[in-house]
Amino acid sequence: MSIAGFVQGSRLWADIETLAAITDPDRPYTRRSFSERFMLGRNWLVERFRDAGLETRIDESGNLIGRRAGSNGAVGVLMSGSHSDTVPDGGRFDGVLGVLAALECARAFTDAGVSLRHHLEIVDFLAEEPSDFGISCIGSRGMTGALTREHLALRAPWDENLSDAITRMGGDPARLTEPRRSDIRAFFELHIEQGVVLEQERLQIGVVEAIAGVTRLEIMFSGRADHAGTTPMDRRQDAAVAAAHVVSFVHSEARARAASGAGHVTATCGVIDISPNASNVIPRTARVIVDIRVSERHVAEALVSAIQATCRDAASISGTTLARFTIQSDTSPTRCAPELTGIIENVVRENDLSQRRMVSGAGHDAAFLARLAPSAMIFTPCRDGRSHDPDEWCAPEDALRGARVLVDALLARDRLN
Amino acid sequence: MSIAGFVQGSRLWADIETLAAITDPDRPYTRRSFSERFMLGRNWLVERFRDAGLETRIDESGNLIGRRAGSNGAVGVLMSGSHSDTVPDGGRFDGVLGVLAALECARAFTDAGVSLRHHLEIVDFLAEEPSDFGISCIGSRGMTGALTREHLALRAPWDENLSDAITRMGGDPARLTEPRRSDIRAFFELHIEQGVVLEQERLQIGVVEAIAGVTRLEIMFSGRADHAGTTPMDRRQDAAVAAAHVVSFVHSEARARAASGAGHVTATCGVIDISPNASNVIPRTARVIVDIRVSERHVAEALVSAIQATCRDAASISGTTLARFTIQSDTSPTRCAPELTGIIENVVRENDLSQRRMVSGAGHDAAFLARLAPSAMIFTPCRDGRSHDPDEWCAPEDALRGARVLVDALLARDRLN
Repeated sequence: MSIAGFVQGSRLWADIETLAAITDPDRPYTRRSFSERFMLGRNWLVERFRDAGLETRIDESGNLIGRRAGSNGAVGVLMSGSHSDTVPDGGRFDGVLGVLAALECARAFTDAGVSLRHHLEIVDFLAEEPSDFGISCIGSRGMTGALTREHLALRAPWDENLSDAITRMGGDPARLTEPRRSDIRAFFELHIEQGVVLEQERLQIGVVEAIAGVTRLEIMFSGRADHAGTTPMDRRQDAAVAAAHVVSFVHSEARARAASGAGHVTATCGVIDISPNASNVIPRTARVIVDIRVSERHVAEALVSAIQATCRDAASISGTTLARFTIQSDTSPTRCAPELTGIIENVVRENDLSQRRMVSGAGHDAAFLARLAPSAMIFTPCRDGRSHDPDEWCAPEDALRGARVLVDALLARDRLN
Repeated sequence: MSIAGFVQGSRLWADIETLAAITDPDRPYTRRSFSERFMLGRNWLVERFRDAGLETRIDESGNLIGRRAGSNGAVGVLMSGSHSDTVPDGGRFDGVLGVLAALECARAFTDAGVSLRHHLEIVDFLAEEPSDFGISCIGSRGMTGALTREHLALRAPWDENLSDAITRMGGDPARLTEPRRSDIRAFFELHIEQGVVLEQERLQIGVVEAIAGVTRLEIMFSGRADHAGTTPMDRRQDAAVAAAHVVSFVHSEARARAASGAGHVTATCGVIDISPNASNVIPRTARVIVDIRVSERHVAEALVSAIQATCRDAASISGTTLARFTIQSDTSPTRCAPELTGIIENVVRENDLSQRRMVSGAGHDAAFLARLAPSAMIFTPCRDGRSHDPDEWCAPEDALRGARVLVDALLARDRLN
C-alpha cells in the first residue's frame, strides 16, 4: 500500500469536527486568536499532536510546532501546516484543514512505519486572520523575521500589547531578535481555495504557483453639497459622479488585463462612502477603497498608474478635486518554489487526479514562509466559493484527496537532498 | 412716490433679524414646525400682523392669515406669503423672506394710503419643510385639498397624529372636507433662489415660470459577496459596478437633455449604499436613490424609461440582478400663471432691474397653490447657492428689491379684473 493509503479520511474528518465544536457557542465557528476559546482549541491540538507521537513546543512567535524526528535530521526540516484561528463567524476549514491534514500525514508516516530523513514539523501558526491588534499572519511573520518592534507595540482593544499577548500564548518575543531559522528545507500548506474556480471547472486539486500581492488604494473626491434641484447640471461638483467613473474603470481595466494574460489580476471597489448621502443633496465627498491583487508586480504598478490617471480625469469631468490618492498597503506577489510545485504536479498526475495551476488571490502564511524557505500550497475545492462564513464547506472526499497529495509530496521531497 | 418707495428695507430687515433670533439657541436657525419655538415665532408674527392692521386668523389647515380688506372685496383675494418654519440648522431667509416681504407690502399700501380693490391676504403656511410627520407643505396641501385622510393619520415620533397637531396649531381639520376656497384670484410667493444661477449671472430678479416636478427612484442591484482576491474578474456579480454604470448614465443623460433645450432637467444620485462595504469583499448589494427634477413632464417619463433600460444593461454587464426599481414619489411640474409672470416681468422691466425666467428646482407652497388659483414666484439671488444651512444669505438690497417687485406686482394685478 502506498503512503497515501495510510491517510485516514475518517480520522481527519473526526478531527475537523472536534475542533469545529470548540467555538464560541453563540456564533459558530469562532476561535479568535488570543482568546480563551482559541487556547482551548490549542490545548486540544497539543494533545492530538502528542497522541501522534510528536514532540510539541511553542516557538518564540507563539506558533505551535509538533516535530516527528527524522532519521538524518542534519538534512533539515520539512514543515507543513496552517492556522487554527478563525475570523468571527468563520468556517470550519480555513486554516484548520491545513493543520489537521499535516497532522494526519505525520500519523500516516508513523502508521506506515516510514522513516523520513528530514525532521517533519507540523505547525499551527499564531493569528493568521486579521487580529484584534490590526495585523494578520502574526506567527508566520514572527518565524520569518517580519514582525517588527512597531508590530509588537500594537495594542488590542483590551489594552494588551502584542508582545505581552504572544508571551501569554507561550511565545518569547525577546528571542525574535535572534537569527531566523535556517533549517527549513520546504514548507507545504494545504488550504481550501476560498474561490469558485476549481468547483466550476470540476477540478480536484489546485497547484498554487503564486500568492497574489495586495495593493490597497484609498481615493477621495471632494466636491460641493449643492441642492439637487436648483443646481444646473453643468455647474455641479458631484463627487459621486467622479467615484462612479473610477469604479467602472477599475472593473473594466482589471478585467481586460486579466483576459489579456497578465496572470492573476483582480481589482475591486468594495468600499464606497458618499457624504452627506441625502437624496436631495449633490454628494460633497466620495471615498473609494480599491483592492488590487496580482501575480505580476509590474501589473500592480501599471494598474495604480492607470487608476491615478483616471482619477484625475474623473475629477476633471465632475468638477471635483482629487483630495486623496493614498496607497494604504502594498505587498509584492510571492512565487511558490518551482521545485515544490513540480513535485505536487507529479504527485497529482501519478494519482490520476485532475488539476490546474493557479494563483492564490487570498493571503496565507505560506507567503511569509516563502521569505525563509521554498514554499508551496495545495488547494482543495470548496463549495460555492464560500469562506469566512459558517457556510464554508470542503467535502470529506476533497479534504482526504488534499491530505493524500500532501503526504505524497512530503515523501517525494524527503527523497531529494 | 411710487408704491415701491413705501416699502422700507430697514423695517423688513429688522423683522428678518427679529424672527431669526427666535431659534433653538443651541442650533441657529431652527424653528421646527409644530414645536414650541415655532409657536413663539408665530405669536410674534401675529403681533406684527396686527400692528400692520391686518385681521388675523388661523385657517382650518393651521395657516396663519392676515387680511387687509379691499374696497371691493367681491372681486376676490390677492394672496402672498410663504412659510416661517425651518429645517433643523436652517437659514434665516428660506420662507421667512416671503412672509415678511408680503407683510411689508401690506404696510406699504397702508402707509401710502393705497386702497386695493381686492382683499389682500398675507399667509404663513404651516410646515412647508419636511416635517416630523414625514411630509412637507402641510398647510398649502390643506388649503388646496391635497391633505388626505391618510396624511392626517400620520404620526410624529412623539406619538401625536397630524390631525391633532394641526388642531394644536389652531387649525380645524374636521373642516378640511368642506369645499376649497374659490375666492383667491392670484398667489405670489417671493423666495430666495436656493441656487447659484442669479448670482453667477449677476441678475437681480428671477421670474419663475415653472416649479419642477420631482420624481424619486429607488434602485437596488443584488449580486454576490465573494472574496475580492479569489474571484476571477469574469465570474463576479459586483453590485457596485452596476451602480456605478447607472450613476454615470444618470449624470450624463440629464446633462445632455438639459443642454439640448428640454427645459429644466436635473438628475442626481445623492444616495449610494453598498453592502457589506468591506474592502476585501465584492459588493453584494448597491442601492441608489435618483432625484429627477424637470419642467416638462415628458422629460421625466423619458428619463425614467432610459434609466430603467440602463439598469437592465447594468445588471447584465455586472452579472447582478435588478432587485428593485421603484418610483418612490412622483409629482408633475407646475406651470406658473402666464398672466402673473407677465405682470412680474413688466414690473421688473419698468424698474430697470435685470432678470431672467427660470424654473424652480426646489419645491414650494406655490406648487400647491397653483392647483387652486393662478400662482407665480419671484426669486432673489442668494449667496453661493447656500440654503438649509446657517450660511444661507440674502443681501439686504436683494431682499428689498424682491419686496418692491412684489408690491408693484400686487398693485398691477389689483388693477386687472
